[in-house]
Amino acid sequence: MDKIYDLIIIGSGAAGFSASVYAKRAMLDLLVIEKSFSGGGQMINTYEVDNYLGYPGISGYDLAVKFREHAQKMGVISENTEITAISESEGIKCLEDSRGVKYYAKSVIIASGAEHRQLGVKGEDRLKGMGVSYCAVCDGAFFKDKTVAVVGGGDAALEDVLFLSAICKKVYLIHRRDELRGAMILQDRVMALDNVSVLWNSRVEEIKGDNKVSGAVVNTEGRVYDLDIEGIFIAVGIKPFSDIFKGFVDTDEHGYIIADETGKTSREGVFAAGDVRTKSLRQIITAAADGANCVYSAEKYLKRAFPQGHAKKV
Amino acid sequence: MDKIYDLIIIGSGAAGFSASVYAKRAMLDLLVIEKSFSGGGQMINTYEVDNYLGYPGISGYDLAVKFREHAQKMGVISENTEITAISESEGIKCLEDSRGVKYYAKSVIIASGAEHRQLGVKGEDRLKGMGVSYCAVCDGAFFKDKTVAVVGGGDAALEDVLFLSAICKKVYLIHRRDELRGAMILQDRVMALDNVSVLWNSRVEEIKGDNKVSGAVVNTEGRVYDLDIEGIFIAVGIKPFSDIFKGFVDTDEHGYIIADETGKTSREGVFAAGDVRTKSLRQIITAAADGANCVYSAEKYLKRAFPQGHAKKV
Repeated sequence: MDKIYDLIIIGSGAAGFSASVYAKRAMLDLLVIEKSFSGGGQMINTYEVDNYLGYPGISGYDLAVKFREHAQKMGVISENTEITAISESEGIKCLEDSRGVKYYAKSVIIASGAEHRQLGVKGEDRLKGMGVSYCAVCDGAFFKDKTVAVVGGGDAALEDVLFLSAICKKVYLIHRRDELRGAMILQDRVMALDNVSVLWNSRVEEIKGDNKVSGAVVNTEGRVYDLDIEGIFIAVGIKPFSDIFKGFVDTDEHGYIIADETGKTSREGVFAAGDVRTKSLRQIITAAADGANCVYSAEKYLKRAFPQGHAKKV
Repeated sequence: MDKIYDLIIIGSGAAGFSASVYAKRAMLDLLVIEKSFSGGGQMINTYEVDNYLGYPGISGYDLAVKFREHAQKMGVISENTEITAISESEGIKCLEDSRGVKYYAKSVIIASGAEHRQLGVKGEDRLKGMGVSYCAVCDGAFFKDKTVAVVGGGDAALEDVLFLSAICKKVYLIHRRDELRGAMILQDRVMALDNVSVLWNSRVEEIKGDNKVSGAVVNTEGRVYDLDIEGIFIAVGIKPFSDIFKGFVDTDEHGYIIADETGKTSREGVFAAGDVRTKSLRQIITAAADGANCVYSAEKYLKRAFPQGHAKKV
């Protein structure tokens, strides 16, 4: 008979780590599954985190190390593998990894996170965290009184422009079409700003700079030129890591797992925490809160569905 | 003409501090109002906090200091006074303190917190944080394999018993009536537990111990005796600090301000964060997340209601 955990947590970003701390404190028999050895999720690529309360001005990498140390101090055990399939039989969830190994649990917290879509241009990867950002709310404050660009044309890009226009000297909005996709009310507000210029029918071809962004090569209707900027915010979409969960739990049109702050999904005993779920603000602190909420929900589920504390045999 | 802030935050617990950090990063013209000089909210009275991700095993006092340092590093200004009245005129919120001083703001985040009701017995105050706890989820893990008591008879008390029964050797439930108020399903589960004894028609008369709890004096139908326990969890209700906001924003039957995770209340431009709002899990980490969410909601409100960035004159 295979071992059946009380709880398996998929993911080791802020949501997964916080869930693991709460789960250990609730004395649950727990396994954390991490896709990468480094863990930490998206914060790993953040140069400086200044809004996780209690740790002003810490690097994303260092904060992830703090989180891991906390989890390890609580005795959290993790396994490095990638889950590729999930199913359920008589209340027991079965997770299968890429090697065909199966893991069984009474409850599952999906904290698999998300990734920002990349432009895929030269310099983008190299200068990530050094002027290339995928989160204006996270990083905008580091560009006070500087000139920056936002790439995109949807709501997220327009909201980034509005946010940055109050902080930065000048904001370029680089959009590949001749009209914006974002909500009209956002468009009106962007257009009313003195320090914003929209570069229509334009694409970024390269991001330049040695140790930090110093400019971008932009192509506007065939004309190629250098744009002097110190920061570039790429808002061309976000992609939750939810493909394997589609059909197992309900997702919205963008692929986010539908769940409110309690983490409850459409399937009993399966919870979603952090960037992978539907929510208004995706931040480290809100992901960490999700982890706590999901364990609280999972505990209540376990006591109800498995009142003897013992699972059925598989 | 009086100054009109973009945002006033009422309270300096985890929710208020986190909101202040996010608000400074959003470059809002901000004032924080603190009722007490120490600030920090309920965590100040927590002996050890072990579940705020990144700070394992820190005292509540030290964590509050970390939070304050973070806010001060961001340049947050606070004023020590107690707000006693709130009103609104043409979109501008007016807060009045006990001295009659008025503060004006375009938006307000209520992060005034809550307090656990006390038993009001000898030893309770003195041994707070040294075996006397008002939060099983927060402190339960420190009582592994020990004998503890829970005082109360409602849902919160029963949930504490269920939580603690999995951790502690023995749990007494001390209830002043001969039947429980909590949900039947919770009652059934509590009754099924081998390591739980209910003391009916019983009151705690005194909590004993030198530097930590060693027992309680219990009165059961007139018979007075010593109960050997190392921890006592008091779950006789929680009281949000929301009296002055009733009528200004909608509250539920327990006095909590009705708001979901975005913090939006029944009144435009007024947001509620942390323990004072309706939510399932009241923890430091979930309060801190609320602060971030409320600022995000407040920013969107300010851009919509005050598109020029200027308020009307009072």
